[in-house]
Amino acid sequence: MEDIAIVGVGQTVFARKCGVSIKELSFDAFREAMAGLNITTDDIDASIVCSAPEYDKQRTPSGLISEYLGLAPKPTFNVESACSAGSMGLRVAWSMIKAGLHKVVAVVGFQKMSELTSQEAQERMGRARDILWESPFGMGMPASYAMYARAHMAKYGTTEEHLAMIRAKNSHYGTLNPKAYYRKELSVEDVLNSEVIASPLKKFDCCANADGASCIIVTKGDIAQNIAAIPIWIMGLGAGSDTMTMTGRESLTSLRCAREAAKQAYQMAGVGPADIDVAEVHDCFTIAEILAYEDLGFAKPGEGPGLIEERQTYLEGKIPVNVDGGLLSKGHPVGATGGSQMRTIVRQLRGEAMEAQVEGAEIGLIHNVGQIGLYGDVTMLRR
Amino acid sequence: MEDIAIVGVGQTVFARKCGVSIKELSFDAFREAMAGLNITTDDIDASIVCSAPEYDKQRTPSGLISEYLGLAPKPTFNVESACSAGSMGLRVAWSMIKAGLHKVVAVVGFQKMSELTSQEAQERMGRARDILWESPFGMGMPASYAMYARAHMAKYGTTEEHLAMIRAKNSHYGTLNPKAYYRKELSVEDVLNSEVIASPLKKFDCCANADGASCIIVTKGDIAQNIAAIPIWIMGLGAGSDTMTMTGRESLTSLRCAREAAKQAYQMAGVGPADIDVAEVHDCFTIAEILAYEDLGFAKPGEGPGLIEERQTYLEGKIPVNVDGGLLSKGHPVGATGGSQMRTIVRQLRGEAMEAQVEGAEIGLIHNVGQIGLYGDVTMLRR
Repeated sequence: MEDIAIVGVGQTVFARKCGVSIKELSFDAFREAMAGLNITTDDIDASIVCSAPEYDKQRTPSGLISEYLGLAPKPTFNVESACSAGSMGLRVAWSMIKAGLHKVVAVVGFQKMSELTSQEAQERMGRARDILWESPFGMGMPASYAMYARAHMAKYGTTEEHLAMIRAKNSHYGTLNPKAYYRKELSVEDVLNSEVIASPLKKFDCCANADGASCIIVTKGDIAQNIAAIPIWIMGLGAGSDTMTMTGRESLTSLRCAREAAKQAYQMAGVGPADIDVAEVHDCFTIAEILAYEDLGFAKPGEGPGLIEERQTYLEGKIPVNVDGGLLSKGHPVGATGGSQMRTIVRQLRGEAMEAQVEGAEIGLIHNVGQIGLYGDVTMLRR
Repeated sequence: MEDIAIVGVGQTVFARKCGVSIKELSFDAFREAMAGLNITTDDIDASIVCSAPEYDKQRTPSGLISEYLGLAPKPTFNVESACSAGSMGLRVAWSMIKAGLHKVVAVVGFQKMSELTSQEAQERMGRARDILWESPFGMGMPASYAMYARAHMAKYGTTEEHLAMIRAKNSHYGTLNPKAYYRKELSVEDVLNSEVIASPLKKFDCCANADGASCIIVTKGDIAQNIAAIPIWIMGLGAGSDTMTMTGRESLTSLRCAREAAKQAYQMAGVGPADIDVAEVHDCFTIAEILAYEDLGFAKPGEGPGLIEERQTYLEGKIPVNVDGGLLSKGHPVGATGGSQMRTIVRQLRGEAMEAQVEGAEIGLIHNVGQIGLYGDVTMLRR
């Protein structure tokens, strides 16, 4: 399955009040993704635009962006699965290339969230729950992840310190990432002392809304070999879902969507958790990174807290995770996040990750989750 | 390319103030699509949900619908290209099956529009233009199609009577369609005497907002042969785009996105316009059907009006078009429209179209346009 590759990756700085339009953000990411490739815009067959539509007034943004990137009259459309939209966009691009419909596809993800007030943003995010039965009763993002955290604590003895250790690690690597929104190092105490958002989650257990865009250029093997210095091959793709309603979930200590996705991706790639050299996981809240350790098989159920306690997910550990700072440091502009995670892994596998480089990384994994465990995507890449 | 088929098609009645939720609408369409198939819900690998997100408060509806249809934890996501979302969803489903990711995919399209006031609906539709440069100046749907109509009149001598003839034909066939919203026969005079919306377009030159859902079940050849009495094969797929801005368009008398899509679909299918036995075209306004005749090669540029004048697109003509009543009679619940068009063609090719049957139809075409010519999709099916 090594015949389709990512050849270009780009990302804007993730920021608040970025002051430019969504098409300008997207162009910035596209330009970085195209840099150094031996093709022009004319060689791109199609574009897929990934975003959660509620944050922006503009409807059907793929047309606006495709026009601005100079891609008309090539096909373009929008793909959305809440916060995992970028990974789903790659999955669709892979399929269209594999099926022979297209040769080179640009996957663009974006979001502008910071012009909304915090209250407006919360209300719109809440609509990703069932708007008849859950979101009216306060089941927004922090409350839901707080439930996961409480359940994990009750079942496995996980502590607030464990959660804070995740942020401490990610904030450390965030200081090395010039495209991260939050670049200040935080200690475990800083996290524990920050204000409570939804107990046990405190301010620094939560990632921030942000503005940003990302872009991935995907193509088939023969073209990839010709146009890119180091193509990075797509070796595994997995996608799962769960119930939208929290009440329908089988478990609150594991995300079924992510387990399903991981199982498929490992099977397609023919490797296991021990073969992964570097991973990006969806740490929208600190507890989410611990769930990811377990759902991806980096640790057994209940042993995720031990992994961070032993610093095994630091650069020098057995499985470095989120060494770009994660969503917690970078910020989380919904549609741009999956592409940003892929950019990090691609740069790791190319050996371009600078101070955050995992030496000799050959295989990387991206874990991207949408709507509190409704959508799960796992992607595996190799050099 | 005959190895992927549509095996099931379903559609709700298109109506106003339908009184049920989007998941219930979707279930209704899904149930019809699954009826008579030798599979159960468990055999469906993935679902793709098509809708324009602005009409409904619910965010990321694919999760809600996937749960309600009993499909979790299978992958699900949203695809959107304004009014052509349903066709784009089929294109993505085809790709995922062709690429080997899935075997049986449900493509669900829905929209609930009629709970909005007319003014709210207009404002939201307007956001499908560039919200910085066009929609604030009144370039909504009727105004834009009115510009096409005026340009066609100026260049080719098309008349308001020609436009009215389209509605007269489609309203006639609408009376035969029990799932159409508008089932009253209208004469050319009725159309000409209706109130002006955006000159030269009058009320009956425009389709109506509606509530509804559609569903298409797609699978690979070997499974299709086993589970369906008459699989209908996907023989051609084409997709194109154009600029989002009206000012960027090369022509106002033809839709480039549709011409691009038609060229690709004819090439993939290995047939030409003369081989099409029956067609569904995107008649959101009467002028749109005339543009479609020309963009699809049923008539030369400027000769579309002659085709309706000679009644060549009636059942007994050389190329029957919209013999289910079209969007003009059925109503146009955005995300459901592509699937509804496919249902009509599938039923024609199966020989199930009752009084509207085109005798011996073997090859059918679906032309689905989004955002006033930004997105164009053409699909060809054969028995």
